[in-house]
Amino acid sequence: MTDTKHYMQTVGQQARAASAILAKADTALKNSALLAIYDALQQAKSQVLAANATDMQNGQQKGLDDALLDRLALTDARFEGMLQGLKDVAMLPDPIGEVTDMTFRPSGIQLGKMRVPLGVVGMIYESRPNVTIEAASLALKSGNAIILRGGSEAFYSNQALAACVKQGLQAVGLPEAAVQVVETTDRAAVGELITMNRYVDVIVPRGGKSLIERISNEARVPVIKHLDGNCHTFVDRDANLTMATAICVNAKTHRYGTCNTMETLLIDSQIAAQALPPIASAIVAADSAMQLRGCPKTLAILSDTAELTAHLSAASEADWDTEYLAPILAIKVVADIDEAIAHINTHGSHHTDAIITENYSKSLTFMREVDSSSVMVNASTRFADGFEYGLGAEIGISTDKIHARGPVGLEGLTSQKWIVFGHGEIRQ
Amino acid sequence: MTDTKHYMQTVGQQARAASAILAKADTALKNSALLAIYDALQQAKSQVLAANATDMQNGQQKGLDDALLDRLALTDARFEGMLQGLKDVAMLPDPIGEVTDMTFRPSGIQLGKMRVPLGVVGMIYESRPNVTIEAASLALKSGNAIILRGGSEAFYSNQALAACVKQGLQAVGLPEAAVQVVETTDRAAVGELITMNRYVDVIVPRGGKSLIERISNEARVPVIKHLDGNCHTFVDRDANLTMATAICVNAKTHRYGTCNTMETLLIDSQIAAQALPPIASAIVAADSAMQLRGCPKTLAILSDTAELTAHLSAASEADWDTEYLAPILAIKVVADIDEAIAHINTHGSHHTDAIITENYSKSLTFMREVDSSSVMVNASTRFADGFEYGLGAEIGISTDKIHARGPVGLEGLTSQKWIVFGHGEIRQ
Repeated sequence: MTDTKHYMQTVGQQARAASAILAKADTALKNSALLAIYDALQQAKSQVLAANATDMQNGQQKGLDDALLDRLALTDARFEGMLQGLKDVAMLPDPIGEVTDMTFRPSGIQLGKMRVPLGVVGMIYESRPNVTIEAASLALKSGNAIILRGGSEAFYSNQALAACVKQGLQAVGLPEAAVQVVETTDRAAVGELITMNRYVDVIVPRGGKSLIERISNEARVPVIKHLDGNCHTFVDRDANLTMATAICVNAKTHRYGTCNTMETLLIDSQIAAQALPPIASAIVAADSAMQLRGCPKTLAILSDTAELTAHLSAASEADWDTEYLAPILAIKVVADIDEAIAHINTHGSHHTDAIITENYSKSLTFMREVDSSSVMVNASTRFADGFEYGLGAEIGISTDKIHARGPVGLEGLTSQKWIVFGHGEIRQ
Repeated sequence: MTDTKHYMQTVGQQARAASAILAKADTALKNSALLAIYDALQQAKSQVLAANATDMQNGQQKGLDDALLDRLALTDARFEGMLQGLKDVAMLPDPIGEVTDMTFRPSGIQLGKMRVPLGVVGMIYESRPNVTIEAASLALKSGNAIILRGGSEAFYSNQALAACVKQGLQAVGLPEAAVQVVETTDRAAVGELITMNRYVDVIVPRGGKSLIERISNEARVPVIKHLDGNCHTFVDRDANLTMATAICVNAKTHRYGTCNTMETLLIDSQIAAQALPPIASAIVAADSAMQLRGCPKTLAILSDTAELTAHLSAASEADWDTEYLAPILAIKVVADIDEAIAHINTHGSHHTDAIITENYSKSLTFMREVDSSSVMVNASTRFADGFEYGLGAEIGISTDKIHARGPVGLEGLTSQKWIVFGHGEIRQ
């Protein structure tokens, strides 16, 4: 057994043992742990920021790109955000122990479901050290142990944060192994973490698509994963065009780097000539760097609008499948709602898609037939988010259909077991 | 691309296309498909039984063992069971389209969840041809397409059943590809089925533990799996001993081949000397072939009882981890409820475990701390079953914690997507 394998197995065993204690911890104890971590973090602010400065320096020397360095930096605002997050999670209702669906069966047994922790969560993430505190607090609140594997570029930041978490756990008498930050930067640790299904119940990866694809392909532990966010807005012939314009501008230009940003605009051919120019102009007016990539019909319609020509180019087939995360919008004219739904189900990423319409039947058809984790009528796709959905916090967004779908809060880190209250019943 | 790979990819594509139509099918259409399959099956009885006779003959020539041949045989009773099953599934409530948890968010959007099909189910099973009809009917009712890969020993039976299903689907205008029985016995078809995650959303394997372990290890598609059923009954010092005896006899001797049968009896040391002899005697009285494998304390207590000595032997460590599926019972004396829970969580298979007690606090502790898919107080573990739980039908029993846990009915073949009714809201 290699050193890393042996180390990770030990981490796993300790996490499994800690998870049994956490599963029994009551709400008050879990909340005091969160607040004790809050105190420890507040007191260790200068050490944490110093560790982060070391990571930043190392990163600059290694020539890490600016976007990565930006995510790595623990600014004052981000530090305050971590502190606030701990308080927010302490305020959330405890999902554990909830009993539902109690019913008597003909045999006489009383059957129901009890919500319980999954056990041990493995989290794999890059650069952003604040994820360490976010993920630890969500795992604690939901009664799970967690193994955190951050990026090597955030090594010192994560170790400093881990020390605060340990201190908080100790203060309330919970096992330190409830939250473990992996202490090796050996990449083999990830391979071990995602395959030791004896000790780990679920993996939540955060990062680029290639990382997540590799993890899903190699994992032997279930993965709650988020791949693309290739989101659509379909403007139906029965749309309120003022509303359509406002929603399209918001869905495209509110933020570019988010997975719930609109990447393709679909427009009903019956209204395209009338509706597309004002919508496209409003989007370009909101960001002069915007590129519009249109189907042939879109180009024919928009090439007459002088202020758009500089922004306009022809879409290729690949554009329909692309999550730009940038001021680029693909536009396609479709014959009707059926073509829109078919396009979304074929080219989309089953993340979030919206229809703009005043037509009752079409709103229901779209709702039912679009196979995405969030389907919306007359709203911006930007609403697909754990906070906007009222989950309080978000461990991730799932593009899978199994277990958790869409924004994943505390409930995604739990399962329901069956419970039976009997009175001596035996099976006939 | 090999022929089998190419064939399976085509099967997958067709299933994916059919799933979009099934997802839209309303309850009445799905029920008429089930009843049309009922009619086709009834009319084709002699052909189906003839195909099964061919399989039985081939199996006998190949020297298949008796247990396998027994599962392969389509008796009159099993044929009637398939017919009745189709009617039963038609009578079940349709889970699809259910909307729950509608709530207004501060932004103004109205948010809820809609239950939708998973898409395409892949079923892998051995010998029992009646699974073909059971699985097809559950998939249809839940709006999923299904790809069925039965054992090569049941090839002709399954093809004959598939013809009936096709006929029923045709009769109501649903695509034949909604239910596809794989037409090759090449083992590579399984490897393809469990890795083509573009076309298959979930795999449900049924069969021996080694088959299921291999499938889970190689799958790239989520698997709803059932491994061991190593179930325990813990008789607490505060148990009603008459009740404990009746439940233990039922849990051990009602049936041996089922996953919810008790395999280990745990008994509180404070009552072992008094309670163990009558319980063990009652179990042996129910089946004279019963073997009792005890820990040293058990042996010391039971060796005084004359009628038990012939049944008694020493348990090895391996016994605590074994699912016998046979008239064998492991017995261990434990210090108290804490040792019982620790033993169950360490050696059990997280399937079904029961406590017998009249003590209120211990009943709640056991309920909460035993990490199994079904946890019972004062009832026989034999109740852990889709029919007893009122699911109407059972696609399998899951020993996983992710997605579906315990008996899996129609709901296990569905997911919930988020739906948003907006009124023009944009994100601030």
